[in-house]
Amino acid sequence: MGESRRILASYLVRCAQAQIEARAAALATEQSVEMPVHAVRSEWVRQEIVGRVASIEPQADGWRVTLSLSASTTGAEPGQLLNMLFGNSSLQPDVELVDAVLPEAILAALPGPAFGIAGLRATVAAHGRALTCTALKPQGLPPAELAQLAYRFAHAGIDVIKDDHGIADQGYSPFAQRVDAVQRAVERANRETGGASIYAPSVSGGPTRVAGQLRDAHRAGVRCVLACPMLLGVPAFTEVVREHGGLAVLAHPALAGAARIAAPLLLGRLFRLFGADATIFPNYGGRFSYSRETCRGIARAAREPLAGHRPALPVPAGGMRVERVDEMIAEFGPDTMLLIGGNLLEAGDAMPERAREFVARVRGAGLGGESGAT
Amino acid sequence: MGESRRILASYLVRCAQAQIEARAAALATEQSVEMPVHAVRSEWVRQEIVGRVASIEPQADGWRVTLSLSASTTGAEPGQLLNMLFGNSSLQPDVELVDAVLPEAILAALPGPAFGIAGLRATVAAHGRALTCTALKPQGLPPAELAQLAYRFAHAGIDVIKDDHGIADQGYSPFAQRVDAVQRAVERANRETGGASIYAPSVSGGPTRVAGQLRDAHRAGVRCVLACPMLLGVPAFTEVVREHGGLAVLAHPALAGAARIAAPLLLGRLFRLFGADATIFPNYGGRFSYSRETCRGIARAAREPLAGHRPALPVPAGGMRVERVDEMIAEFGPDTMLLIGGNLLEAGDAMPERAREFVARVRGAGLGGESGAT
Repeated sequence: MGESRRILASYLVRCAQAQIEARAAALATEQSVEMPVHAVRSEWVRQEIVGRVASIEPQADGWRVTLSLSASTTGAEPGQLLNMLFGNSSLQPDVELVDAVLPEAILAALPGPAFGIAGLRATVAAHGRALTCTALKPQGLPPAELAQLAYRFAHAGIDVIKDDHGIADQGYSPFAQRVDAVQRAVERANRETGGASIYAPSVSGGPTRVAGQLRDAHRAGVRCVLACPMLLGVPAFTEVVREHGGLAVLAHPALAGAARIAAPLLLGRLFRLFGADATIFPNYGGRFSYSRETCRGIARAAREPLAGHRPALPVPAGGMRVERVDEMIAEFGPDTMLLIGGNLLEAGDAMPERAREFVARVRGAGLGGESGAT
Repeated sequence: MGESRRILASYLVRCAQAQIEARAAALATEQSVEMPVHAVRSEWVRQEIVGRVASIEPQADGWRVTLSLSASTTGAEPGQLLNMLFGNSSLQPDVELVDAVLPEAILAALPGPAFGIAGLRATVAAHGRALTCTALKPQGLPPAELAQLAYRFAHAGIDVIKDDHGIADQGYSPFAQRVDAVQRAVERANRETGGASIYAPSVSGGPTRVAGQLRDAHRAGVRCVLACPMLLGVPAFTEVVREHGGLAVLAHPALAGAARIAAPLLLGRLFRLFGADATIFPNYGGRFSYSRETCRGIARAAREPLAGHRPALPVPAGGMRVERVDEMIAEFGPDTMLLIGGNLLEAGDAMPERAREFVARVRGAGLGGESGAT
C-alpha cells in the first residue's frame, strides 16, 4: 500500500532513551490494532493496518515519534480520525499529539470551510483590512438587553457580534427569542449606518436541538453561528453545523485546551478541515498561556494551502485590549479577525466610544499599514 | 437564590500562595460571566450568575478551589454542563477539574443509565458474580473473521463481546454487514451452549450515521452498543445513543484521558449521568497510568447513590490478564465487568481454552469468594 494512503502522525513522547524504541512501538500498536502484533494472524492486517514507527527524533523535552497509520482505519469521519490519532493514547500522560499530515484522500473527503476568509469578508463587506469581532455578555441578561448591546456594537461598526460561548438556550434567554431580538437590533443599526455587521449566535446541545436552533437562526435572517466542536463532538459539528447549517461557522475552543493535542493541529488544521470558517484561539499575552509561537502556528494552519480547501480566518482573543490592535495586526496580518469583548464592556457608559475606537484602529491599520493588501 | 440551585465545582489550581485568591476569583469569572465583574451592570446577574469562590484549601500539589456556579447557566444539557464546568478553563494549564457536586434539579434532569447494573445482569443472565467482557480485534478483519472470533468467545461463555473501539464503519468491515454476521454468530453459540452472551458493536460518526447504525443494530437483534462520549460529543451521546437508541450502552474513554478532568468525575459520575450503563476505564497495572485510588474512585462514582439514578457497571480494562481476575474481583467486588482482550488473543490456537479459563475464574470467584453476594 503506497504512502499516499498513510497518515503521518507525530507525537511528543517523554521517556528515557533506553525505553523510546519500545515506547514508540507500543504507541503504534495502541493507535492501530490495540493488541500484541505477534498475535495478529492476518498478513493483510499486519501489512496495512498495524501502525508503523516511521521515525524517532530527539527533542529538547522528549522524543518526536512519527507513526505511519493506515488512512483506511479512519475513513474521512472526523470522530474516527481523532480516535485513530489520539483516542487511547490520550489516556497516557507521557504522550502529546503534535502533528498529523493527512493524505489527499482524507483531505479531499473532509468538508473544510464553506465560506472561508473571502466568504466572511463578503458577508460583512470588509476588504483590505482585518475584521473586528466582539461578544455579547454577560450571560444572564435577557434578550432585550443583549439586543441593546448588539445594537450599540453594530452601530459602532463592529463586523461580527457573537454570543459569549456560555450563552446557550437558558431559561432567562431562550435561543429563539434572543436570536430574533439581537438579529433585528443588528439589522436596525445596519440600516442607520449603512453597515453590514452580522450576529453569530452560539448553537449548543444535542443534534436535534442544534438543528432546531439553526432553523430558528435561518428564519431570523442570521448568516453566521458560533459552535464549540469539542463540546458538540466533532462528528456533530461537521454534520449538523457545517454540512446542514448553511451558515458561516466560527469555531470556539471550549474544552479543547486540555486535549493534549497541539493547538495548531486541533484549532488550526483540524477545526478548519471539519468546517470552521474562522477559529477563535486564546492569543498570547492575555488570560491564557499560549505562546506567541503556538498562536503563529494556529494562524498558519488556518490559512496555509491545504488540498484546495478554503483558508479559515484566525481569531486571536482571550483578554485582548484595544491598545493591542496595531501589534496584533502586525503579528497576524490583515487576514485576521480581532476579537475584543470584556475590554469594551469595561468602559461602562463609554462603551460605544471604545467600540468605535476599536473599529477605527483596525480600519486605520488596514488602510495605512504595509500589511493592508488583501 | 438557595444553594439548591448551585453547582459546587472543585478545581486543583497550581500557583503561589500570594496569587491564589486572585487566581480563584479569576476562575470564578472565567467559568461564569467571562468579563470583569465590576463591569456587570445587572444586579441579578451579579447575584445569581457570577461564579463565587466558596472555599480555598491547601493541598500537597496546589490549592483546591471550590466554586459555586449557577445551575441555571447549564440547564441539564450535557455539553453546556461541561462548558460551564471546564470550557474555557481547559485552556489554562494550571487548572484541573477534580469534582462537581450537582444540585437535585440537574441530577434529576439528566437521563442516567437506562439499564444499569441490574439491567445488564438480566440481559446476560449473570447473577451473583462479576461479568466478563472481551473485544473483537484487530480492526482490519472482515466481518466473517470477526464473527468467527465472536462465536468462539460466546461459546466460551463470555458475557459481553464488544467491538474494539477502533472498529467503526470502514470499507473492509461495513457496519451493517459486520453487525449481522457477528450477531448471528453469537446467537448460534448461545443456542449451542444455552448461554446468553451479547454482542456490543461500536457506533461512531455524525448523528445521522449513528442513528442509522442503531437502526441496523436493532434490526439485527443487538441489545447493547459501545460508544465513545468524548468522540461523539456528550450531547450526541446522550440524545442519539442513550435516549433514542433503546439499547444498553457501554461508554469507552477514548479521547477522555487528556481532558484534565478527574477520571472519577468524568468516566464515573458524568458518563453515568449522561446515560452509560457501564463505563470502561484503564485499570491500574496495565498499559495506562491510572492509580489504584483513581480506579477505586471511578468504580465508586459509577455505583454510589445518585439521586435515584441506576448504578453503572465499572469495567476495568487496558492490558488486563486472566491471572489478575481474582485480584480485580477482590478489588472491585462482584458488581463489576472484567474486560480482557489482547491477553485472550495472544494465546493463538489456545484462545478458546484461555477464554474458558477467564470465564471459569470469574464464575469461581463469584460462587466461592466472600464478595460473591449480589
